[in-house]
Amino acid sequence: MHAPDPSTPDHTVRPETLSYEQAGVQYDLIDPLKISAQRAAASTAVQLAAHGFTEVAASRGESAYVVDVGPFYLASIVECLGTKTLVADEMARLTGKSYYDRIAQDTIAMAINDLITVGATPLVVQAYWAAGGSDWFGDAERAQALVAGWKAACETCQVAWGGGETPALAGIVEGGRVDLAASCTGLINPKERLSVGDRLGEGDAIVLLASSGIHANGLSLARKLVERLPQGYLTEVDPIHHPGLTYGDALLAPTVLYSPVTEALWKAGITPHYCANITGHGWRKLLRHPSTLTYRIRQVPPVTPVLGFIQRHAGQDDREAYSTLNMGAGFAIFVRADDAERTVAVAQAQGVAAIVAGHVEAGPKRLIVEPLGIEFGADDLQLR
Amino acid sequence: MHAPDPSTPDHTVRPETLSYEQAGVQYDLIDPLKISAQRAAASTAVQLAAHGFTEVAASRGESAYVVDVGPFYLASIVECLGTKTLVADEMARLTGKSYYDRIAQDTIAMAINDLITVGATPLVVQAYWAAGGSDWFGDAERAQALVAGWKAACETCQVAWGGGETPALAGIVEGGRVDLAASCTGLINPKERLSVGDRLGEGDAIVLLASSGIHANGLSLARKLVERLPQGYLTEVDPIHHPGLTYGDALLAPTVLYSPVTEALWKAGITPHYCANITGHGWRKLLRHPSTLTYRIRQVPPVTPVLGFIQRHAGQDDREAYSTLNMGAGFAIFVRADDAERTVAVAQAQGVAAIVAGHVEAGPKRLIVEPLGIEFGADDLQLR
Repeated sequence: MHAPDPSTPDHTVRPETLSYEQAGVQYDLIDPLKISAQRAAASTAVQLAAHGFTEVAASRGESAYVVDVGPFYLASIVECLGTKTLVADEMARLTGKSYYDRIAQDTIAMAINDLITVGATPLVVQAYWAAGGSDWFGDAERAQALVAGWKAACETCQVAWGGGETPALAGIVEGGRVDLAASCTGLINPKERLSVGDRLGEGDAIVLLASSGIHANGLSLARKLVERLPQGYLTEVDPIHHPGLTYGDALLAPTVLYSPVTEALWKAGITPHYCANITGHGWRKLLRHPSTLTYRIRQVPPVTPVLGFIQRHAGQDDREAYSTLNMGAGFAIFVRADDAERTVAVAQAQGVAAIVAGHVEAGPKRLIVEPLGIEFGADDLQLR
Repeated sequence: MHAPDPSTPDHTVRPETLSYEQAGVQYDLIDPLKISAQRAAASTAVQLAAHGFTEVAASRGESAYVVDVGPFYLASIVECLGTKTLVADEMARLTGKSYYDRIAQDTIAMAINDLITVGATPLVVQAYWAAGGSDWFGDAERAQALVAGWKAACETCQVAWGGGETPALAGIVEGGRVDLAASCTGLINPKERLSVGDRLGEGDAIVLLASSGIHANGLSLARKLVERLPQGYLTEVDPIHHPGLTYGDALLAPTVLYSPVTEALWKAGITPHYCANITGHGWRKLLRHPSTLTYRIRQVPPVTPVLGFIQRHAGQDDREAYSTLNMGAGFAIFVRADDAERTVAVAQAQGVAAIVAGHVEAGPKRLIVEPLGIEFGADDLQLR
């Protein structure tokens, strides 16, 4: 029923190590378009002058786009959930449960966690739920779970759910499937909250906030891996410490919403110098800012069981795993060294585990993860 | 390759008249979810109080959501293109041309033309291009057309293209297809520009702006109709007046971008009392505002050739056609009667044909289209 991905390798050839590219996402095909789109997009910034406004040029290439509208900055974004619904659909088939309340949180987290990196307070979320046909919306239990989860996530983030789109796109979206995305608009207010990295520098501490699992990146790999598991999604992830926790259920732990932490930081008088949402490209996202600095990690957070499970079963070494998955760290906050411990305390007061993982040094652009003996350089992350 | 829409009627039974529901969109399946989502969304408005802001409650149910952030109002939206890409893909197969520059304009128009109804100046557009696989982006000509069209539409509307998402969603989006959407954020500045209908009242004039064709609503019907045409998309729409213009080409006329008109109106000192973007539900959208008023149309604009062609070949009477398609009127502006002629002049100076089509009267909620002898009542449009 579903069109095969042409880039999926022949199933008779089973490689020992499963990389992200082998799992079906070919960045080299997407990247030329992305670069050309980014250039065209950048050229439109001058249009704002007609309205008396200017863009914050440093936000180009960051996770959210920022415009100076006078009394404050305006930040906006649209983000796709990705293919996590395919796991939810399969688990629903296997267990009879609906996981769309969790999926709703994941979708909102994709937008919110990116928007807050620039220092914005999220204000309005719009829902984009494009189904493969009108009948998708006819499953009342699933639809209600999606609505309830969406509402709950908005409440956690103290944003208004403005509205959205629920198109039925037979012929574009596959029958029985849904393409979920969220747009988010927020304000950076007061303007000192802007954190596009101009204050990032040597001596800053790197605080890592815990993830809840795979979040919503690396799912192509995670889904591909199911073929290797005798019990598929129902394989237990960690029978000793988490008996009964299946791979599918563990994958569907919803993404942590980090805006309560960034809002609490502001109230505590802490302004991050920079933030990185650790999504696609895993820990390489710590290299996101264009400045030439060395990021030295001295302590890594505990690896969430499902991520350790994926690493083992995909036969990935640490370098491959940390370059693809969040490995227990969902969000990075770069703060003044003397704010580091308090940043951890503020996060923990919001129920999010955190550690002071390392610091920023003068030096070539690279990330050194000392406890694991791995290193990533500037060439390992080309986002702009 | 594409999953059949379960609601598509058996092809052996060919009804004389082709209605929108017969074309595969079943609103009764979508509507319960929509209503429940709208209620849940409305309940989240209180979250804005945590930030010292409030929603503009009258914008609930309007085309864009509005928040009062103090010095001005913030408006935001996400909008889907729909299934117009299926026409572009088929025409590309038949002619070898890429139509994605036009498709880009359509997608941006979906968002911009809704955002401006509340009086907002669009500032930032984000792109949402979700493909069925990485290979979709590998067609350089198509990708470049999409980028070029997107940039050009942003320039026409004087908005900054902030960025966006280009996910590859094999298993969710069909192979070879793309799900296109746009989010848009704008400001209502100064606040007097807010046009959520509180000033709408009897005596107001109804100015209709010309459409360029089908725009991006009614495409399910238009695609279904192809089965009835011996030459399909290559059938000539109007051999006498427009020799060589094929049905497919005419369908792909890009949606008019109306923000240059609304911006020019403001500069001319005209503040609309209300606006309606005429999309799905055709002219019933003129009944969008919840107040109890009668809308009397005394003059209808010329029917775009492709819409007349659809009406004829689908065997629709005027009531069915005007309740589904824009029939030559893409956008309605409700203004003070003594601003009506000047509104027409301002639109025409922007290259958009316009007419003073009618006026608003006291009376039951209904739309009377006098020249056609048709009428729609409150029960014909349930959007809230």
